[in-house]
Order: sequence, then structure tokens, then C-alpha cells
Amino acid sequence: MPPMPARGGIDLGGTKIQAIVFHPADERVLGQSRRPTPHEGGPQAVADAMAEALQEAADGAGIPTDQLAGVGVGSPGEIDSEAGTVSHAANLPDWEAPFALAPELAQRFGTRVSLGNDVDVATQAEFALGAGREASSLLGVFWGTGVGGGLVFDSKPWSGRGAAGEIGHMVVKRGGARCPCGRRGCMEAYAGRRAMEARALKLTDRGRKTALFRIMRERGRENLSSGVWAKALEHGDELAAEIIERAVQGLGAGVASAVNLLDIELVVIGGGLGVRFGEPMVERILAAMMPHLFFDDRPPTVRVAALGDLGGAIGAALLSQRLHPAASTPA
Amino acid sequence: MPPMPARGGIDLGGTKIQAIVFHPADERVLGQSRRPTPHEGGPQAVADAMAEALQEAADGAGIPTDQLAGVGVGSPGEIDSEAGTVSHAANLPDWEAPFALAPELAQRFGTRVSLGNDVDVATQAEFALGAGREASSLLGVFWGTGVGGGLVFDSKPWSGRGAAGEIGHMVVKRGGARCPCGRRGCMEAYAGRRAMEARALKLTDRGRKTALFRIMRERGRENLSSGVWAKALEHGDELAAEIIERAVQGLGAGVASAVNLLDIELVVIGGGLGVRFGEPMVERILAAMMPHLFFDDRPPTVRVAALGDLGGAIGAALLSQRLHPAASTPA
Repeated sequence: MPPMPARGGIDLGGTKIQAIVFHPADERVLGQSRRPTPHEGGPQAVADAMAEALQEAADGAGIPTDQLAGVGVGSPGEIDSEAGTVSHAANLPDWEAPFALAPELAQRFGTRVSLGNDVDVATQAEFALGAGREASSLLGVFWGTGVGGGLVFDSKPWSGRGAAGEIGHMVVKRGGARCPCGRRGCMEAYAGRRAMEARALKLTDRGRKTALFRIMRERGRENLSSGVWAKALEHGDELAAEIIERAVQGLGAGVASAVNLLDIELVVIGGGLGVRFGEPMVERILAAMMPHLFFDDRPPTVRVAALGDLGGAIGAALLSQRLHPAASTPA
Repeated sequence: MPPMPARGGIDLGGTKIQAIVFHPADERVLGQSRRPTPHEGGPQAVADAMAEALQEAADGAGIPTDQLAGVGVGSPGEIDSEAGTVSHAANLPDWEAPFALAPELAQRFGTRVSLGNDVDVATQAEFALGAGREASSLLGVFWGTGVGGGLVFDSKPWSGRGAAGEIGHMVVKRGGARCPCGRRGCMEAYAGRRAMEARALKLTDRGRKTALFRIMRERGRENLSSGVWAKALEHGDELAAEIIERAVQGLGAGVASAVNLLDIELVVIGGGLGVRFGEPMVERILAAMMPHLFFDDRPPTVRVAALGDLGGAIGAALLSQRLHPAASTPA
């Protein structure tokens, strides 16, 4: 048997595109590349940027893309795996109608392309190779622009009728804060980065002081990235600390609710903010869960995502392997 | 092969004990008996009443208890299936320490006794023989004294680390109403019958008028049973209607949160209040879920429990069959 070939993985986010070339058997990243998600040009511009990113990762690994056994893509929005299309990707520019992303990329790369949900593949990566290696059930909580969730029960992914994991839209306060989704009181209305930024703007308009927007400009950012929040906290910015505490309390209530319902072994906290803030914030989230846990004498283990920023791309590579294990290895 | 023998099933509730003799192959109830759960005498008195109830059901069926292939018991509290003990049964009198319920009953009945969680067995009964026969995933919501939940994923029961299903303690309003469990803002703080009764008392103390307590006394009840609530609603009692609406809104938010997380096919509403109010109330609960559902263009099916009051006892009989399929049929 020839050695197990490498796979490509692309994590398509609202802010950035992360591509890797990954060797599943060795669990090694052979090449990687990251670039911002284009804000103009619609799905075609995004597909172009994804292709460039993977090409760069493949160049770094010294493996032509048509020698990859397959490429996986973790994408937001609605995915039709059969057709290889993505539609209704709310965080991506002008991406409402179905766009045939998999065929487009397959044609460019000269290998098979598999599509999966971004949060699901990241959860599977943590389960297979990251913080959840030893667990048989877990809840992945991806704390970033929004808050997404991924589930593993009995060592198997759970996606319900195809759309499970909307943990960000669990109600933590009926009639509470307005969520970017338009509803009220969702966990994401407190904890999502977009909602946090809206809150910072609103409080600034009311005369509160904060260094958040100055730091954002100094870093050449267009929005309050996780790095901007981290910097503001380091500087003892009171408004930032207050909004983060509100997010942590929202996460505590929502994640505890999920645990009360599911009694899972392990909660893995990932996503841009989760990975950036790391272990100390995970401890604060667990502390915020405690008052809401029905069985508070045996809380689940709560850990930060072990694969960090690369979890989504690694999960995408693993998806390609799972869907096409016996890939027709090009000669 | 001899014909598949009958099984006993006992549903142990905080208010009543329901016993049946059930024929699984024919899905027929051959005998049944119900009595109030003793409020005095501790676990021994409860075990005595359970034994009498099953004896009466067996007499009705014309089958001696030692001819039953097994008896299942659905119980609240913490269950140790190996030891056959129940402990920490909060809704039962003086039942904190482990009590060896299964050995005690097995000795009396002359057949094997299996213990399971009351809500889990009722959920399994709805899945196997009731409203969920055609579903592969479902959430059972048992709306009674408290609010319990049961889960089926991929046609298999899910109990997590043994204590899944505490849907009543999902947070629907952070910092909200005080729950009988001592926490704040749980779904049960709005929707549990015990919390509803406390609310009715509190509002009466503040001078609000209601027929609830008069109806309770006329019926010789010690608390506001589902029948009392139903009667008050029929009479157009405003306070009762207001508290029920508050419960429905709480259920809507909590169940929608669970659906957003799990994307299950079917929600089955059972329990004393759920079964009593039936279809019209289930429609109100679905309406209350809608504003919180993230994918509101394809809500899950929501149905009333098809097995009604007997679901728990039928589920207990099915548990006995599942745990001991090849029961040593006494000659």
C-alpha cells in the first residue's frame, strides 16, 4: 500500500480564509496559508481567494494540488453536499443564491472537493485530534463573530435534520437584548463579537469612554477583532471588560442550559475569541455556568480548543478523508 | 416458542402511582390500577402502595405476578440499576438515602424488577409505540409538577452521563423567576405546576382574585392539579389564564432553544398538564416557540403524547423487556 496521501483543508470564515495541507496519518500540517475574506466581488472573488490560499499552502508543502487525495472545505451558510453548492452565507458578501463552490475548486485543484459545515468540521477535528480525543460526547462552542455549536454523541457527529448546533440562538433572556439575527435574548446577542461591537458603539454614543476603537484604527482593522478586544483588556479598558463579562455570563447560561439538557462529558471552547482568550477565559465561562448547572457537583470538563486557529481547516481535511477514504490517489 | 408473556409496568410519580399489566407484542394493556402516592411512611409505604397497585392490575388481567416475564419501574430520583436502589427522590416523602426498591418488589412479585428513570421510559414508550413511532429523533417534554425531558437520537435513547434531560432547568430568563430548584430563570420556574401554584398563591396574597383554590377544595385536592387548572380555564378565570400563558411562553422559549441546538424531528408534549390540555395547548406551545426558532421555515413537528397517562407505565414495561428480553418465563 502506498503511504497515505496528504489532504487539503480550507476553513472559510467571515473574516479570514485559512488553508492547509495536512497529513492525517501523521497528524502533521505540511503547509499553510491565510488571507482575509474578500468583501467585494461576491462568491467568485471568495472562491478565487480560497484557491490562491490552498495553492500557497500546497506550494509550502511542496505537493501539487492534483497530488492531494482530496480537499475539504468548512463553510458557513447552507450546504448542499451532493451539488457542492453553498447558499445563504450570511457573513459572506452577496452570497445568497447557491454558488457551485465544490465543482469550481475541484476543477482548479484537479482533485475531489468535499463541503461541510464550518462548525461541524471544527468540532470533529477537536474530537478526533484535539481537546476531545478521549471523550465520547462533546459540545463544541465556537465563540467568534457569532456563536456556533457542534455536537458529538456516542463518538458520532450529530447534525439533526442538517442544521443542529445553533447554540448561539438558544434563549438566555426572554425579551432581552436584540440579536444580530433579529430575535431577542439569544446567547449570541450577548456573546457574539458582532453584538459586542454594536454594544461598544452604542455605549460610546452614550458618552462612555473606551480605547477599543482607537486600538482598532491603530491596528488597521475594520472591526473589533479578537486581538483588539484582548489588547483593550490588557490595558484595563473598563468598557471592554464590562462587555466581555456580559458575554461570559451569556455563555455561562447558554452552555449550562445545553449541559442540563444533554449531560455531555466535555465542552470545548473555540472560535476567534475563545482561542485568543484561552484557558483563563474558559475558567471564567465555567464559573459562569456553575450557578445554572442542575447537577453542579459534577460539571462537565471545559477546555479550550487544542487545535487553535487551525481546527477548522484540519477538520475540513478530515472531512475529505471521511467522505472519500479510498481516494483515487493520482499516480 | 411459547407466546410472548405479559410484563408489568409501574410509573412512580410524586402525586400518583400508575401500574399496568402490558402485552408488548399485542401492544395491549391487560390490566391497570392507580392510587395516590403516600405522603407519609417514607419509601417503605411507597413500595407497599406500588406492590398493591401492580397486584390489582395483575388481578384485573387475570395473571399472577409471578407469571409476568418481568416488571419495570419508572422512578424519579437517582437510580442505581445494578443495586436496584433509588435515592434523592425530591418529589417523594423522606426519600433521600438509597432504598432497595427493585429487590423489595422482586421478592413480593416473584419476578425480575428493572428500574429506569421515569421521564426516559415515558420518552421511549412514545418513541416505540406512541407519537414518535415514525420519528428517528425526538425530544419528550413532560409538563407536570416539574418539567422533564427525554431524548432519542438516531433511534436510540440518549442519557448522557446518566442525567440528561433536565430541560426544565434550561435558563430562559437570566436573573428571572425563582425556580423550585433554588436557581433563577429556569424554564420550570415559569412552567412547572409547583411554580405555577406558588405564583397563584403569591398573586392571591397581593389581592388578585381567582377560583383556583376554591375549585381545589371542592375537588378535595391538596394542590392545584392539572384538572383544577383545566376547570379554572373553562370558567374563564383570568389569573389562571395569565399563569398558563406565562408557562406556555416559558415552554416556547425553552423548547425552541433545545430545537435550535439539536434540530430534532419531533417534540412530544406529555406529562400531567400536557396530556390534560392536549392538542390546543400543544398548538399554543408551538406558536410560542416560533419567534425563537432560528430556522422558522421548518419547525419540528410538535405533538401531544399519544399514550396519555399510561405512557410512563407502558415505558416501564418496555424497559423490562429491553433489559431482559429472554426472560426466564416461569412455568
